[in-house]
Amino acid sequence: MREVRFRDPAGSTRVGEWTDDGIECAGATYDESEVELLPPSDPSKIVCVGLNYADHAAERDKEPPERPLLFLKPPNTLSAHGDTVTLPAGKERVDHEAELAVVMGEQARNVSADEAMDYVAGFTCMNDVSNRDDQDREQNWVRGKAFDNSAPLGPVLATPDEVPADAGVELRVNGETRQRSSRDEFIWSVPELIEEITTYLTLEPGDVVSTGTPAGVAPLEDGDEVEVEVEGVGVLRHRVRRA
Amino acid sequence: MREVRFRDPAGSTRVGEWTDDGIECAGATYDESEVELLPPSDPSKIVCVGLNYADHAAERDKEPPERPLLFLKPPNTLSAHGDTVTLPAGKERVDHEAELAVVMGEQARNVSADEAMDYVAGFTCMNDVSNRDDQDREQNWVRGKAFDNSAPLGPVLATPDEVPADAGVELRVNGETRQRSSRDEFIWSVPELIEEITTYLTLEPGDVVSTGTPAGVAPLEDGDEVEVEVEGVGVLRHRVRRA
Repeated sequence: MREVRFRDPAGSTRVGEWTDDGIECAGATYDESEVELLPPSDPSKIVCVGLNYADHAAERDKEPPERPLLFLKPPNTLSAHGDTVTLPAGKERVDHEAELAVVMGEQARNVSADEAMDYVAGFTCMNDVSNRDDQDREQNWVRGKAFDNSAPLGPVLATPDEVPADAGVELRVNGETRQRSSRDEFIWSVPELIEEITTYLTLEPGDVVSTGTPAGVAPLEDGDEVEVEVEGVGVLRHRVRRA
Repeated sequence: MREVRFRDPAGSTRVGEWTDDGIECAGATYDESEVELLPPSDPSKIVCVGLNYADHAAERDKEPPERPLLFLKPPNTLSAHGDTVTLPAGKERVDHEAELAVVMGEQARNVSADEAMDYVAGFTCMNDVSNRDDQDREQNWVRGKAFDNSAPLGPVLATPDEVPADAGVELRVNGETRQRSSRDEFIWSVPELIEEITTYLTLEPGDVVSTGTPAGVAPLEDGDEVEVEVEGVGVLRHRVRRA
């Protein structure tokens, strides 16, 4: 099942099912163009993982670390399918990073990898938009990763059964493929990431764990149309504007 | 004025005024012992500043950076006046860091230092509890700074007029002074910090900006009673338990 959060034409926030016929909710069927899509969850935090594909680690000239490299995107980073992301002003290089994102379904604390999937509601697509000018000169990636609207998320929450173990993760800019890899290239699996994170931080229902990006990260330009596709989830689309 | 959030004996969350006679709210006066104090705001994020006192930068063997060193504590880090903070298991060194914390009153984005104080609701006390074992070995301080209950905050929100420009910031462990400095020792002032942060991140009402810690950080041990005092705010008290 693919679930979608949206504001209906009357302005109410609703949860419906994303089907081939449209968005089904409470006996009505809406066309995507009639409604305002929202991020598929309302996280209190997004916990991100750096360098989780060996090929991307090489591209950024980094050794894969001994344990997951973690960083945070707070709620101000969220944006939705269909939004236009305004890049931070005056920066030379702001990159796309296609990611498979995990949405938590239950509160999770000290959860072992064996039981981690019991706490997962499903998967979605994320673009971890990254301001390299600042990221490369700060200890903690706050200016680099936590700026407003730097986490387009969506369009749907797909239950785990929809997403194969070797699901493709792909990013296109203006129709041209820039990143293409697969979930089976992860250095750390989703359950391993949840175990490591919940050793330190409680994950709340709706919180997001984003699993890192494959090789091919590259700069975004004014007017670009970005598509992040995760096999079994669908395609997250957004535009980019330079301030 | 000093405002306090609390759960009353019937379990309702209320906001009252902290006076010499007790907590006044809606015609009733409660003794502190009758109620459960809550953190004075419910932030979507805490934006913290490292190395904002020159003396602490020297103590950690770091040059003061060219611009504020920022990091994040998400909502899972909150704890309240009177709580017992459980330190992460199996770590050698977990330190206290007394801080003056700023609570935002209005949504703030691209706010200049000149107008920054118009967006501030007031000040409170924070202990930025820091797991050095991990902080010193990770790029982003997530295991080091974002673990559960690592941000005791409170007890009150004091309006800016209550807190002098040279307000003392002090921390005691079991009655012994460990840190003592003053707001006029800041490298970056509160308005300068708000300008820098809101260039990148929107701050929401209730969000917290914590202003860094002075010299004297030291390890916490099982059973310690910690007091953070900010002149004009009062004293935040909490206990510590080693897991």
